[in-house]
Amino acid sequence: MRWIRFSAAGKTAYGILEGDRISEVAGDPFIGYERTNRVHSLAGVKIEVPVVPPTFYCAGRNYAIHSIKAGHDVPAKPDIGYRANNALIAHGENVVIPRDATENVVYEGELVVVIGKKAKHLSEKDALGCVLGYTIGNDVSERAWQRSDRTFWRSKNTDTFKPMGPWIETDVGLDAMETIVRLNGTEQIRFETNNMVFGVATFISAMTRYLTLYPGDVIWMGTEGTSPNIKAGDVVEIEITGIGTLRNPFVAEEVANARN
Amino acid sequence: MRWIRFSAAGKTAYGILEGDRISEVAGDPFIGYERTNRVHSLAGVKIEVPVVPPTFYCAGRNYAIHSIKAGHDVPAKPDIGYRANNALIAHGENVVIPRDATENVVYEGELVVVIGKKAKHLSEKDALGCVLGYTIGNDVSERAWQRSDRTFWRSKNTDTFKPMGPWIETDVGLDAMETIVRLNGTEQIRFETNNMVFGVATFISAMTRYLTLYPGDVIWMGTEGTSPNIKAGDVVEIEITGIGTLRNPFVAEEVANARN
Repeated sequence: MRWIRFSAAGKTAYGILEGDRISEVAGDPFIGYERTNRVHSLAGVKIEVPVVPPTFYCAGRNYAIHSIKAGHDVPAKPDIGYRANNALIAHGENVVIPRDATENVVYEGELVVVIGKKAKHLSEKDALGCVLGYTIGNDVSERAWQRSDRTFWRSKNTDTFKPMGPWIETDVGLDAMETIVRLNGTEQIRFETNNMVFGVATFISAMTRYLTLYPGDVIWMGTEGTSPNIKAGDVVEIEITGIGTLRNPFVAEEVANARN
Repeated sequence: MRWIRFSAAGKTAYGILEGDRISEVAGDPFIGYERTNRVHSLAGVKIEVPVVPPTFYCAGRNYAIHSIKAGHDVPAKPDIGYRANNALIAHGENVVIPRDATENVVYEGELVVVIGKKAKHLSEKDALGCVLGYTIGNDVSERAWQRSDRTFWRSKNTDTFKPMGPWIETDVGLDAMETIVRLNGTEQIRFETNNMVFGVATFISAMTRYLTLYPGDVIWMGTEGTSPNIKAGDVVEIEITGIGTLRNPFVAEEVANARN
């Protein structure tokens, strides 16, 4: 099942996406829902971020080549990190590159786990039982700030730096999935999505030893490989087979301000 | 004005605290409110976390002595960090020390800024205009995990490690405030709350160069000095003059589970 969050006629709602038709629901996939008799065409709505998480988790260095190319050891244990909600944008929205960013702005295509049920103390065997489904994230990063700052606050959490979407797919085969990143239509990298240093169940089990996961929490699972520098005018697509494609144009800050 | 978030008769609401009486409102201090005719006594309600933030910001190393004693240089610029909502608890609730924590569990008494208005690109001069008010936080930390882990996920964001409250005070004089920490009733440290490396306006101005602050966001401003090890059975009080006192008992994980 595909859960989509969308706006139409000034109202934001969840719906079930079947082909290119959205069956609007009352409620949401977390607290419960009922189908309404309102149906929309996918082309006729504004796609929104699929969920605004209570807590926004993100794994770092979770693919071997990406870690090694970045000059890091592969981590010895699953220490989860964080990103910030201010930076979230939806499929199709613009990533705005700040005026004073260096040229070293890059993409990171990531599988995103969406938690569906409150969870604590889950074994690895039971861990996936708290998952509602999966979506896609682009962990846009300004590498010079990432190196110079004490935290990731502006390198990874500048407004618009966290595209997420386009929707949540509940039925996936993790081992069959591929992540493909395209820059202006040209494939840059293709990797097995589930070839992680620590998999989804391992992270959830480790995290829930100490913390409670809540419905709507998201866990971004890290990325493989490296990215060329992305400049204003570029379009980045992250496809994960079985989910869909997250597509976002990059623009310069001046252009975006002029549009407001 | 003092904003309190509380539960009574199974319902959670905001109210205005006047002495020991709460005047319940419809709405909240962020989107707008109207006073109702419902009045509660402070002693008769359960105090809740004053706000569940969209994004939970926290400054590190923001007082000189704390930074130097921890073996760090005082930071050269205001790089904000993050904490996680799962860890929030209210005034009076128990901090639960995990079974496998070391003895090196400590408090950090902090001023908390509560954002009232959406804000971007604020000058230092205008920065405080987006602030609704101030509350108190205890940035409980497990120092061994803080050293051993790649992130602060369990050292600072284990469930219950972020007491916040008891309420939000909108009228304060930052330069007149003192922070006093008491352990089992005995004063441990007293410092000028506003004697920060980077003050509230400096952080807000720097942050909003790149990110949008939203109503309900909180910024924990860091702590001064060091803490003795806190053990189950201890009670930590953080008082900030002009706001109030945040009081939380510490318990061992077994005790807490047995109570559930």
